[in-house]
Amino acid sequence: MSELKNDRFLRALMGQPVDVTPVWMMRQAGRYLPEYRATRAQAGDFLSLCKNKELACEVTLQPLERYPLDAAILFSDILTIPDAMGLGLYFETGEGPRFRKIVRTEQDVDALPVVNTLKDLPYVTNAVSEIRRELNGRVPLIGFSGSPWTLATYMVEGGSSKDFRHIKGMLYSQPEVLHQLLEKLALSVIDYLNEQIKAGAQAVQIFDSWGGSLSDAAYIEFSLKYMEKIVNGLIREYDGRKVPVILFTKGGGLWLPQMAAVGADALGLDWTMNIGGARAQVGNQVALQGNLDPCVLYGNAAQIEAEVARILESYGMGSGHVFNLGHGIHQYVDPEAPKILVEAVHRLSEKYHS
Amino acid sequence: MSELKNDRFLRALMGQPVDVTPVWMMRQAGRYLPEYRATRAQAGDFLSLCKNKELACEVTLQPLERYPLDAAILFSDILTIPDAMGLGLYFETGEGPRFRKIVRTEQDVDALPVVNTLKDLPYVTNAVSEIRRELNGRVPLIGFSGSPWTLATYMVEGGSSKDFRHIKGMLYSQPEVLHQLLEKLALSVIDYLNEQIKAGAQAVQIFDSWGGSLSDAAYIEFSLKYMEKIVNGLIREYDGRKVPVILFTKGGGLWLPQMAAVGADALGLDWTMNIGGARAQVGNQVALQGNLDPCVLYGNAAQIEAEVARILESYGMGSGHVFNLGHGIHQYVDPEAPKILVEAVHRLSEKYHS
Repeated sequence: MSELKNDRFLRALMGQPVDVTPVWMMRQAGRYLPEYRATRAQAGDFLSLCKNKELACEVTLQPLERYPLDAAILFSDILTIPDAMGLGLYFETGEGPRFRKIVRTEQDVDALPVVNTLKDLPYVTNAVSEIRRELNGRVPLIGFSGSPWTLATYMVEGGSSKDFRHIKGMLYSQPEVLHQLLEKLALSVIDYLNEQIKAGAQAVQIFDSWGGSLSDAAYIEFSLKYMEKIVNGLIREYDGRKVPVILFTKGGGLWLPQMAAVGADALGLDWTMNIGGARAQVGNQVALQGNLDPCVLYGNAAQIEAEVARILESYGMGSGHVFNLGHGIHQYVDPEAPKILVEAVHRLSEKYHS
Repeated sequence: MSELKNDRFLRALMGQPVDVTPVWMMRQAGRYLPEYRATRAQAGDFLSLCKNKELACEVTLQPLERYPLDAAILFSDILTIPDAMGLGLYFETGEGPRFRKIVRTEQDVDALPVVNTLKDLPYVTNAVSEIRRELNGRVPLIGFSGSPWTLATYMVEGGSSKDFRHIKGMLYSQPEVLHQLLEKLALSVIDYLNEQIKAGAQAVQIFDSWGGSLSDAAYIEFSLKYMEKIVNGLIREYDGRKVPVILFTKGGGLWLPQMAAVGADALGLDWTMNIGGARAQVGNQVALQGNLDPCVLYGNAAQIEAEVARILESYGMGSGHVFNLGHGIHQYVDPEAPKILVEAVHRLSEKYHS
């Protein structure tokens, strides 16, 4: 493997000194980029794009050609694991993800296998290897997975949901069945992320997109507990370098102290949390990633810079911060806006690292 | 007006001693009740139901016939004010609310009038008077309004939204235009709630359904500031009794200390916040209302009771808590479930009021 030329991102996640604050954007390879839309059209559909390693690599690298980002993230779908468990993932135009088989009963859960990544999801590890090779040490590559709770919501609801009534019905009437499902998912995610690490991922992020829909008590029992199990099962050093783990629960600002205690290296913050307040809560236990409202990118250049400045000032002096959006970049953002953002993060953060 | 026979709800909001914890449910008059669906069918559509004072009164009282609730809430829509401003509210089946006119520019905002409730929304104050008379002192009547920020989201987006891109685009590129809109809405809400109070509302709640979509800094500037203005403009005592004000920002758990400081009597909590933790933060400054996950009502009786017990224990000894769901009751809930809930709150809370 070629030498890493820009390791700001990894250093910030470990709290080591950096010259400027590193920055990347969740969903940075996405529909707001015309070149992404062209590649996707070439692939035919979204899943075919994920499953073609050359094209997945191509879209992963596209945002790096436009912006001086400090990390790349594997282009893939969050629902590869349930698909590999045999649920039959498909996408309905304008409707988001759907499954042909839905998980609602103890029998349904019993019938699910734990995923063997190399056998069941070779297209993911192949894409990781391909991207890592093509990156050629330019920036680190992030691997990722959905959290068990988040994956379970799609599997039990059969797709996206606004109220999570089926899975919460299960949570409040058959909690032991849900625990069994989450256990299988946690084992699958451990295998999945470890294989991504062996294939070349230099950091991994667990996306808990729907943990914020849970009550305080249920979040700890049904989401955080399984993320902790994953953190404890991951390869934490590979190829002579630490592999940082980032936990991101959207809407998780209320639970930062509990999240900081599970052993991950960093926590992702959405935009509702004050990052200075978050830092005061977690101290040096973990680094922080975030937390610009993706809608700021609809603003003009002066407003984008002002919001970047506000977050940098709120975080304050020193390392331990990876700048990011608080959620994925929106499809209607002007591709010029991230340019302003990335440049502003690098320029305005310098004084906090002297 | 007849003497109030059950004032637990008002007493708890003022932190005065009560025999048991009072309870009501947001959206308690709603689609989960077959008798509601029958009345709504009779009215023709949702807006006609809101505009007919006899039918609005009928559905307001329906849940009180089934459950020993400690408060009634005016049956109305959150979007009456924008409708009265001339935007043309209508409902598309399965699509939620829509407006014929959308507010996007400074000219659009300039053209909006401040609402004169008695002239523009007589159907609301007529319904309040009717319900108050029919209640005959059984329990107090709650009036309500959407918050300026929440109303503005619908007016600028043209309906419901997942990403709020138009209003946040306005927030980040033309903040002064948005402030002008919020100012007109705040003045309208003050008039609207004061007229509800004069017509018979004994407490009022401000629903900030979408404040939780804002960043920390933007929440204070674009939502809380205008709710504070409203609180300061409200009639706080009427007919010899204090009229408590409840602020409810869904997803607002991160901002409780700031919310507690604006002068309201109580804060509503969704289910993500630990209510004991919330009480520790706000002390005796405000009462708290909430905070059961509405999905608990999909559970069995034992689970509903366990979750009620958990919240009561978390809040602890003494008054200052109004039990409620953390959001509106879902339409698919079995009408037997709220019976278990309300009975459990009264029975299990007794020991905390000795």
